[in-house]
Amino acid sequence: MFAAQQITILGTGLLGGSIGLGLRARGWKGRIVGFSRRHTTLQTAQQLGCIDHIALDFPHAIRDSQLVILATPISAFESLISQLAQQHDGNRVITDVGSTKQYVIELARRSFPPAMFRRFVGSHPMAGAETNGPQAARAELFANKPCLLTPDSDTNPHAVELVQSLWRTLGMRIQVLTAEEHDRIVARISHLPHAVAATLMQLAAEEGGLNAASTGFKDTTRVAGGEPQVWTDIFSTNRQAVLASLDAYLIRLQNFRQLLESGNRAQLHDFLLRSRQQRENWLKGQWTGGDE
Amino acid sequence: MFAAQQITILGTGLLGGSIGLGLRARGWKGRIVGFSRRHTTLQTAQQLGCIDHIALDFPHAIRDSQLVILATPISAFESLISQLAQQHDGNRVITDVGSTKQYVIELARRSFPPAMFRRFVGSHPMAGAETNGPQAARAELFANKPCLLTPDSDTNPHAVELVQSLWRTLGMRIQVLTAEEHDRIVARISHLPHAVAATLMQLAAEEGGLNAASTGFKDTTRVAGGEPQVWTDIFSTNRQAVLASLDAYLIRLQNFRQLLESGNRAQLHDFLLRSRQQRENWLKGQWTGGDE
Repeated sequence: MFAAQQITILGTGLLGGSIGLGLRARGWKGRIVGFSRRHTTLQTAQQLGCIDHIALDFPHAIRDSQLVILATPISAFESLISQLAQQHDGNRVITDVGSTKQYVIELARRSFPPAMFRRFVGSHPMAGAETNGPQAARAELFANKPCLLTPDSDTNPHAVELVQSLWRTLGMRIQVLTAEEHDRIVARISHLPHAVAATLMQLAAEEGGLNAASTGFKDTTRVAGGEPQVWTDIFSTNRQAVLASLDAYLIRLQNFRQLLESGNRAQLHDFLLRSRQQRENWLKGQWTGGDE
Repeated sequence: MFAAQQITILGTGLLGGSIGLGLRARGWKGRIVGFSRRHTTLQTAQQLGCIDHIALDFPHAIRDSQLVILATPISAFESLISQLAQQHDGNRVITDVGSTKQYVIELARRSFPPAMFRRFVGSHPMAGAETNGPQAARAELFANKPCLLTPDSDTNPHAVELVQSLWRTLGMRIQVLTAEEHDRIVARISHLPHAVAATLMQLAAEEGGLNAASTGFKDTTRVAGGEPQVWTDIFSTNRQAVLASLDAYLIRLQNFRQLLESGNRAQLHDFLLRSRQQRENWLKGQWTGGDE
């Protein structure tokens, strides 16, 4: 079980709120302090049981917490990290839930004293929804989903252990990789798909046909319903990796175009069969916990 | 209520089977005859209540039916339509559930005697799943989804009425459009999204990262789980329209690439906000029945 007695969640929206609900649902007895720019968000989070205590200022928010979790959009991290750097360092462990890791880790490296930086562990729980705010939080949001951790060789092993135990308690499947690998992979399986879905949505909305669209289109474009502020931060802080995956994708889409134009039915069938089998194999691996 | 006393479903898989289950669930009392290349499919369909009666040959399958529904993959239509053309034309109405319409209608026009062709009404119920076969059939598969009909000015109005009443009974929202409009629009909202999803799947499976993928990737690629044979038929019979929508899409994706590379946060935010709002407006229109 997760060993901290008190944690602080900075940003009590969908992700931050779900951490609180999830820890409670899985029987953790410690104290959850919430802090947010907007007081109404904190009040809602408290009413819904996501947090126990509302902190009124930053020093009170983090005092006595063994773990601080940055769960705001990434654009708020610079200010939060600089505030953390200014407080007395009570040996606390710091993590975040940001979707890009090299940017966040560089920010932490520049801002924190070295000993504090060694207790910073970048996390990326692969969970979300197209809804936001504490009212969208769910205790099971993280269950059975991957969580990517990006410690480096200098990171304090006790810090890594505490952060791993947080996500394990919430039911996540942990993977450890470098921040650079993380950003490259996540560009491919999350950031690129977002751009692809948003562009499909715009094409249909602006050139016509949405009246005829059904559940297939709804699912394919679901991620395009994500919060624009959050996604502006993500694309801005992972630009090079997204550009690289977008270029690889454009080449593949051009290849498909040629295949379609050639009229070769056998090759078309192979193309469609290949992706279907890849998807089936992937889902099979997921259900059997094959990722761990 | 749907006025036929007996109907024939040619192909009792996901779509054909769901027509039978749906008519029963909504209280239609007529007789449902099923015919399929594979006898096991027919037996499963009968056991599950999708059809009442298994026809052992084509003449018996269609005899005494006021409506015949082609519900196989499109590549089987040529043979079925030529068999229909050879039988005594008992004033029966014919429809299909194929995802492309110009190809199917030209096939019917070439094969049927003129009077029979006037009783052919092309349909495209916008419903499906990544599963197939009668065991995947559901009475509510069609409920609240769009159904596109493509009669032309010569089509018999009573035939159009009977086919509309079939889909209305199953809970669908009818839209009438030309076959050419249909193919152009459906390329954009269904066939292109399939190619886009299949390509995303291949990129991730072949360049790495699937272990980290989660529900967003699963939803974005769901349609790529569709039956390869069915989709080979669809792409082959709507090639020009898919190529045109793919070209329009590639231009938009290149524009997004430029936007991302420019590093203009405000424009990036506008791009993400625009697709999110378009999606919200579309879903709002759907729930209020705004399409009819």
